[in-house]
Amino acid sequence: MKNNTPVVGIVMGSDSDWPVMKAAAEICGQFGIEVESKVVSAHRTPDDMAAYGKDAAGRGLKVIIAGAGGAAHLPGMLASYTTLPVIGVPVETKHLKGMDSLLSIVQMPKGIPVATVAISNGQNAGLLAIRMLAAYDDSLREKLIRYHDDMATESRKKTENLI
Amino acid sequence: MKNNTPVVGIVMGSDSDWPVMKAAAEICGQFGIEVESKVVSAHRTPDDMAAYGKDAAGRGLKVIIAGAGGAAHLPGMLASYTTLPVIGVPVETKHLKGMDSLLSIVQMPKGIPVATVAISNGQNAGLLAIRMLAAYDDSLREKLIRYHDDMATESRKKTENLI
Amino acid sequence: MKNNTPVVGIVMGSDSDWPVMKAAAEICGQFGIEVESKVVSAHRTPDDMAAYGKDAAGRGLKVIIAGAGGAAHLPGMLASYTTLPVIGVPVETKHLKGMDSLLSIVQMPKGIPVATVAISNGQNAGLLAIRMLAAYDDSLREKLIRYHDDMATESRKKTENLI
Amino acid sequence: MKNNTPVVGIVMGSDSDWPVMKAAAEICGQFGIEVESKVVSAHRTPDDMAAYGKDAAGRGLKVIIAGAGGAAHLPGMLASYTTLPVIGVPVETKHLKGMDSLLSIVQMPKGIPVATVAISNGQNAGLLAIRMLAAYDDSLREKLIRYHDDMATESRKKTENLI
Amino acid sequence: MKNNTPVVGIVMGSDSDWPVMKAAAEICGQFGIEVESKVVSAHRTPDDMAAYGKDAAGRGLKVIIAGAGGAAHLPGMLASYTTLPVIGVPVETKHLKGMDSLLSIVQMPKGIPVATVAISNGQNAGLLAIRMLAAYDDSLREKLIRYHDDMATESRKKTENLI
Amino acid sequence: MKNNTPVVGIVMGSDSDWPVMKAAAEICGQFGIEVESKVVSAHRTPDDMAAYGKDAAGRGLKVIIAGAGGAAHLPGMLASYTTLPVIGVPVETKHLKGMDSLLSIVQMPKGIPVATVAISNGQNAGLLAIRMLAAYDDSLREKLIRYHDDMATESRKKTENLI
Amino acid sequence: MKNNTPVVGIVMGSDSDWPVMKAAAEICGQFGIEVESKVVSAHRTPDDMAAYGKDAAGRGLKVIIAGAGGAAHLPGMLASYTTLPVIGVPVETKHLKGMDSLLSIVQMPKGIPVATVAISNGQNAGLLAIRMLAAYDDSLREKLIRYHDDMATESRKKTENLI
Amino acid sequence: MKNNTPVVGIVMGSDSDWPVMKAAAEICGQFGIEVESKVVSAHRTPDDMAAYGKDAAGRGLKVIIAGAGGAAHLPGMLASYTTLPVIGVPVETKHLKGMDSLLSIVQMPKGIPVATVAISNGQNAGLLAIRMLAAYDDSLREKLIRYHDDMATESRKKTENLI
Repeated sequence: MKNNTPVVGIVMGSDSDWPVMKAAAEICGQFGIEVESKVVSAHRTPDDMAAYGKDAAGRGLKVIIAGAGGAAHLPGMLASYTTLPVIGVPVETKHLKGMDSLLSIVQMPKGIPVATVAISNGQNAGLLAIRMLAAYDDSLREKLIRYHDDMATESRKKTENLI
Repeated sequence: MKNNTPVVGIVMGSDSDWPVMKAAAEICGQFGIEVESKVVSAHRTPDDMAAYGKDAAGRGLKVIIAGAGGAAHLPGMLASYTTLPVIGVPVETKHLKGMDSLLSIVQMPKGIPVATVAISNGQNAGLLAIRMLAAYDDSLREKLIRYHDDMATESRKKTENLI
Repeated sequence: MKNNTPVVGIVMGSDSDWPVMKAAAEICGQFGIEVESKVVSAHRTPDDMAAYGKDAAGRGLKVIIAGAGGAAHLPGMLASYTTLPVIGVPVETKHLKGMDSLLSIVQMPKGIPVATVAISNGQNAGLLAIRMLAAYDDSLREKLIRYHDDMATESRKKTENLI
Repeated sequence: MKNNTPVVGIVMGSDSDWPVMKAAAEICGQFGIEVESKVVSAHRTPDDMAAYGKDAAGRGLKVIIAGAGGAAHLPGMLASYTTLPVIGVPVETKHLKGMDSLLSIVQMPKGIPVATVAISNGQNAGLLAIRMLAAYDDSLREKLIRYHDDMATESRKKTENLI
Repeated sequence: MKNNTPVVGIVMGSDSDWPVMKAAAEICGQFGIEVESKVVSAHRTPDDMAAYGKDAAGRGLKVIIAGAGGAAHLPGMLASYTTLPVIGVPVETKHLKGMDSLLSIVQMPKGIPVATVAISNGQNAGLLAIRMLAAYDDSLREKLIRYHDDMATESRKKTENLI
Repeated sequence: MKNNTPVVGIVMGSDSDWPVMKAAAEICGQFGIEVESKVVSAHRTPDDMAAYGKDAAGRGLKVIIAGAGGAAHLPGMLASYTTLPVIGVPVETKHLKGMDSLLSIVQMPKGIPVATVAISNGQNAGLLAIRMLAAYDDSLREKLIRYHDDMATESRKKTENLI
Repeated sequence: MKNNTPVVGIVMGSDSDWPVMKAAAEICGQFGIEVESKVVSAHRTPDDMAAYGKDAAGRGLKVIIAGAGGAAHLPGMLASYTTLPVIGVPVETKHLKGMDSLLSIVQMPKGIPVATVAISNGQNAGLLAIRMLAAYDDSLREKLIRYHDDMATESRKKTENLI
Repeated sequence: MKNNTPVVGIVMGSDSDWPVMKAAAEICGQFGIEVESKVVSAHRTPDDMAAYGKDAAGRGLKVIIAGAGGAAHLPGMLASYTTLPVIGVPVETKHLKGMDSLLSIVQMPKGIPVATVAISNGQNAGLLAIRMLAAYDDSLREKLIRYHDDMATESRKKTENLI
């Protein structure tokens, strides 16, 4: 996991999703995990998307994180083209605030699941990918335990701010 | 329009959508329009779906009607693979009653539209296809005018039932 | 389609809908399609609206695009007065964000369909109209294919912005 | 109010709305108010609907009660054709349970109001019409006061059923 | 209707509702109708509210317009204390955008109706009151017809702004 | 708490709410708490309701549990007439499934709170009242701890049913 | 209640909830009630949370007020660890505006109730706690009655602002 | 993976969730994966739940699947106690149809993700777990590819049923 081959693929329908998806890339980076980030549109470049899904496992990816908004087809379609776990990030939308994205991603039919996280919560998508990898990587699991400990420590300090 | 080549393609993600989509086929039949009806799943047979979309115009289709429920990706993905108008039918779902299907179909991003009709309203999908064809076919337009007249006549009679 | 008679009629309940509907007019213009744009209110000028619907086909229109917000009756009522395909654009509203507009437009009863696009997505309404016309106009279809190719090219470049 | 000319017009888009709208007719009858009940469809017979709205005041009607489901355009369109108060009854729908009907009826734009009552609550539509008439008819107001007294008496007795 | 006794009572739960309710007072004023405007809180001054409802008809009011937000009990409670028609204005709320106000006002149980208008649409509440009065006042009805004509004229001019 | 004076008042808008509210009475009975159960309608008997609220504390009640559906005004209005804690039970409704009841009860304005429990969860309303009493009654608190222990024991046994 | 031992515990998942929860602390302070305010995260410090719940009654607390947003587990989990009444404050969220927080807090299963107040209404959470305490503290009840009187007086003055 | 130690832990708040969760167990069984199924209630046995989460990784589990309905805290709380990936299944509820469960599970705050699948879709939860395992198990990945092939074959046959 410390070589240069990405193990997590981060894709999104448009570069306007990047502010959300960047958090996924950053948290992976913080854990020393190689990622690749790419714009792949289910609607504008459907063949690229199909190719991305089909090649993902062969190229060494272990997880795909896909973000999309509105009629958010990217995560579900990628899941149709690969056997890797696909994490879907429902990106906030202007009018329906991401409720459309959420339902379009999470309500997949029997046979093809998408692991959906909270609306625009790119960081949690990254952490979920890390959990999947850490289940097979003890040193990564150690890091995750320390990360949880740090969160706890930080959280405990926040009572001081209640003034 | 009276030859044997279908001009309207009716596709759906599963045969469980047929009770809804059959109404589209039937109304087209009633207007003498050739249709083909097919199960094509965005999630279970994504390559078939891509092929269906890519070949549609070349095979003589003028409109595609696609029905799907839940994270309903079929209409939007077909629209990504063809330049034909695609009509989407949000099929009712068990838990969210088709609200998920509706948002997954109608909230398409800029560039790729889907012509969405009411939840589980297969008949209106058929009638919308007929309107598209009738704009270029005077005899079909005549039939549509008569159909509207018949609806009006029938509607007027219904006051008798208010007892 | 290159003469001066409009083939697409763009109507809206108020000039406050214009920022949304202008995108429909612009994309049609970009494809060389003649459009007319008009304020016609279902509620303030119902007789004008009825007349617009009744005369549309006779005046050479092939499609009507109608935008409205809230209790958005314009698209559905126009569809009741014409056999042309009517595309409805649910315009965002201040309080319910266009969810009211969407349901008022898409949930039409059996017999009278409206081809509904995404909330405030005027551009897709225009593109849907173009698809309908392109099904009967090979040169227009060629343009649409090039438009899709351009979208794909542009989309592919956007990975560079993920920094 | 005890002659034969109806003062309350009850209209609905289809005879399938009658089970809901009958309650409006019945409560008016119980108060000795003449009503007329009619199927008038905004979508199937738009010209009849326009005529109904335009003639309503001239024929002696004081209030119109209109019920409709889904993209429920009837109450709002009638209100556009008359200056009489129009009461809208959002009729329950199969999939969205009347939430679509409610929003399509209540969210009218500035200028044309519809007096909306609860989903499928035909009786309250009737009682609202009675309140409007009773504001100008003392004997009707007396009846309404007695009706309220009777409701109170009945309500008080119901504690006995809590066993 | 041209004397000094108010015929329309406009009440609201808080002065923060005034920006919405003022539009009701203004349109009534524009039609020469006497109104009174008052803060009466169902929750902070429930006895005042009960007294307001009980005295309303006796003081010469013909209609009550009540605005409230959130768990908006004012319109429904006033309707319980009077036989006058009560018009409810669901005032926009910070978090749920008035959807809570709308349901709290419109979903009244059998026996006690509230004439609900669109979220924060104070003007339509005023116009609905005017319709109720105009049904019994020919000169007011004439004004309303002219008002509709003016709206139509204004609406027709707006096409000029589509540039 | 073992005398005959009720300490918990259970009220509801109609006897049709009893199937839901009975669970509140039963769980209180199970804990040896005296309750009274009564139909008091905010809309049909508003003066009775006001009197109930005003007298509640003086009669020895410590908590009021109020159930209502739709535009559910009873809990909030009672809270306006008393300083006792009022627990609101949003009773399921036919069309909106209790979402209307929930928002009408929980979204109270600043100054007058209602302690809202889950839709149609009468039992939890009773348990919440018991918690309030138990904070001042050690023997009741002991019973509550045993109740929790029993729930845990029962819950643990349920794994056996997973076959 | 006038010693230094807190009787109301105010906890929240993050210091970002403090602007909402501070209103609970302030109103309690205004009534002379000792409170403690603390950040305790169900997700980041679950063991701290469990300990907080288990010790609460023993440390003299009579009520817990817990605020949380999104998948808001804190109030419900605390209620699982204590027999004290737990008041839940659904804190507004960025995308779903607190609807997610509300449902996550109010929809507790049979056995473990949470007393839910309006979205982001920290003040009402405080007032609800005060009502619970006042049911067993006559001087506090007197203060609450005066508080209600002051609210009424203030409310009555607000009519002056309607200009 | 073919020994007797479970690698997937399936837990649920009540045995009433079993009809939904059984599908997760069954599909894992079909792929030869050892699972354990258990009732663990976040609310009735919170200490058991904490222990389950803390011990999970040490006992050899690689993934946890947790189902819950309403204020569905189980998946999120387990995720707080473990670094393993936790898959959440929002179980349908009587009144809100699982929308409450969905939001309570998916809307987790930064730091602790839950991999959420569709409402009541236990099978997809199982398949998602299998994908996670298959990323590190080539023979399992082969089986998954065959499973996809079989789904495709079955789907293709369904066109025959469209009669």
